[in-house]
Amino acid sequence: MKRVVNFSAGPATLPLEVLQQVQAELLDWQGSGMSVMEMSHRGKEFMSIAAAAEADLREVAGIPANYKVLFLQGGATGQFSFIPMNLLRGKTGVDFVLTGDWGKKAAKEAARHATVNVAATSADAKFTQVPDRASWKLDPNAAYVHVTSNETIHGVEFAADPDTGAVPLVADMSSNILSRPFDVSKYGLIYAGAQKNIGPAGLTIVVVRDDLIGQAAPLTPGIFDYQQMADSESMLNTPPCFAWYVSGLVFKWIKANGGLAGVGERNAAKAKLLYDYIDSQDFYRNPVAKADRSRMNVPFTLANAELDAEFLKGAKAADLDGLKGHRSVGGMRASIYNAMPIEGVQQLVDYMKEFARTRA
Amino acid sequence: MKRVVNFSAGPATLPLEVLQQVQAELLDWQGSGMSVMEMSHRGKEFMSIAAAAEADLREVAGIPANYKVLFLQGGATGQFSFIPMNLLRGKTGVDFVLTGDWGKKAAKEAARHATVNVAATSADAKFTQVPDRASWKLDPNAAYVHVTSNETIHGVEFAADPDTGAVPLVADMSSNILSRPFDVSKYGLIYAGAQKNIGPAGLTIVVVRDDLIGQAAPLTPGIFDYQQMADSESMLNTPPCFAWYVSGLVFKWIKANGGLAGVGERNAAKAKLLYDYIDSQDFYRNPVAKADRSRMNVPFTLANAELDAEFLKGAKAADLDGLKGHRSVGGMRASIYNAMPIEGVQQLVDYMKEFARTRA
Repeated sequence: MKRVVNFSAGPATLPLEVLQQVQAELLDWQGSGMSVMEMSHRGKEFMSIAAAAEADLREVAGIPANYKVLFLQGGATGQFSFIPMNLLRGKTGVDFVLTGDWGKKAAKEAARHATVNVAATSADAKFTQVPDRASWKLDPNAAYVHVTSNETIHGVEFAADPDTGAVPLVADMSSNILSRPFDVSKYGLIYAGAQKNIGPAGLTIVVVRDDLIGQAAPLTPGIFDYQQMADSESMLNTPPCFAWYVSGLVFKWIKANGGLAGVGERNAAKAKLLYDYIDSQDFYRNPVAKADRSRMNVPFTLANAELDAEFLKGAKAADLDGLKGHRSVGGMRASIYNAMPIEGVQQLVDYMKEFARTRA
Repeated sequence: MKRVVNFSAGPATLPLEVLQQVQAELLDWQGSGMSVMEMSHRGKEFMSIAAAAEADLREVAGIPANYKVLFLQGGATGQFSFIPMNLLRGKTGVDFVLTGDWGKKAAKEAARHATVNVAATSADAKFTQVPDRASWKLDPNAAYVHVTSNETIHGVEFAADPDTGAVPLVADMSSNILSRPFDVSKYGLIYAGAQKNIGPAGLTIVVVRDDLIGQAAPLTPGIFDYQQMADSESMLNTPPCFAWYVSGLVFKWIKANGGLAGVGERNAAKAKLLYDYIDSQDFYRNPVAKADRSRMNVPFTLANAELDAEFLKGAKAADLDGLKGHRSVGGMRASIYNAMPIEGVQQLVDYMKEFARTRA
């Protein structure tokens, strides 16, 4: 069996122990005589899997009792539409703080449903920083303030949970959820596609404060009406059962590995290893303001872009995969989510050093 | 390893050979060093998986070139909303032919977007038949005519592809797609949740004639706008990659097992075995008109409903699982989709005979 070091931005590497358990019980889940893929979602076996996953997520993330946890489909991009459809609650305006392309996409979709006020943006700085909190021009009548807690493409991350006072804070946490301790109570709604730190693509987690739901726009599809989905425990129709199950195993893996405190320490160490090397020389460069650098996605460029293809080819030959940067920013990007061990980052740094030594 | 005979209505039993292949390559897909769950959806490995699945589905189902095949999320229930959002094309009315609860649900959701005309219904007959074609009161100005080709709960199936002339025919084929040869060109749109005859829950297939798309309602979310999804080859955002991959293996399994002709023959033989036994005695009963009986879902009742619990307990003890009928109709239901071997149906009939012999 071959395993590469997978730096893909998502879908992304999963914990090996989780994959091994999935493999072991793929034909017969715990003596049930069925694969999880074959189980009725209304049967006691899958109901127990679903309930355990929610309980473990609540425990790991410290989700207060007045928040609903929804297991949905359609990805974060789907939520770009369904969040305004659910959360406008009679209001007409929403605030956006833009730190990259994903926030821009979310704002564009929201603009079809509401008046979008760009309260702050770092577009002028090519999205290499988070706008200083003091500069945000928030509207006290906005239905909510939207942030992208980690911009996967630009590698820009909020270092701490922002404070938006009485206006509910909505965060797209697709690429940094569960990567460190965070305070759910600071948020009105948190959403994330599963395919970075949670599990397989096809599952979308929404965590929403219960006083914000129940006023969906009239044409909101039932399966994306947060109140209806909360009332049916995310089973208004057949959910993405297998992705839910694998995600539950990932939550257990986090619990068994020190919870978010442990995960956060390891992620900080991994990011430090890579950024410290990048900052120590001139062959590679990361453009993001140090305080706002992502611990999940590390974009970097070679001083001589003509060497990009050779860099990637050599990396691939060394089983370092998925390092090509997003087409909109070019260069390289190393995504180092929870399941990436520090040994993988060390292998990358070693390769980068050797490549620089022989090509500089 | 234990394997039960799984009569669940969906998620449902999958071909053992498919599950074995999934298991074998779960940690390392064909030497890539990655699980399919870990692959970038934009990488060449997953792109090849996705393209092969579409090509095999097109071949198996004989899908003409002027039809788009979309790999979506949200289940058939999601499509109850997204079909009117995409297919009204300036029209205001839609026709429904109702043969059970799923059609009723689809009509209820459509009524939020359009005027629903019930062109025919077998509600008065408690949904035990398909209304005679001559009785349908179709509106020539309707945007489309909607049918549920197989009603999973009531066990009622259209024996042949209906003809609706110039008005596009839309069919929810969730529970009988790919179960026999069918003529795609008779339909404007076919949709199906994957979790019966295709693959794991979390994937929804839409097959749509290309002249019907491109006029979605203004607030249609991008990931459910058929034109946008066709243009992006169903990758406007991250698709449900793993479900897509498993479904592709199921399409290959159909090809290797005689295509839809072979599948259809085996399904007919399985259904005949069970219905012939039911019709040969008085202990069990199926209420559906013989010409309209489903070859996929066989509901049946015991003459003495007080024996239901004992019947189910004994079945479970004999590793015959998932036989409890839907709560809305009671009794039993045996779902005998493509992946159910005839030996499984024989085991059920044997059990039914023995139970009747000892309890009658």
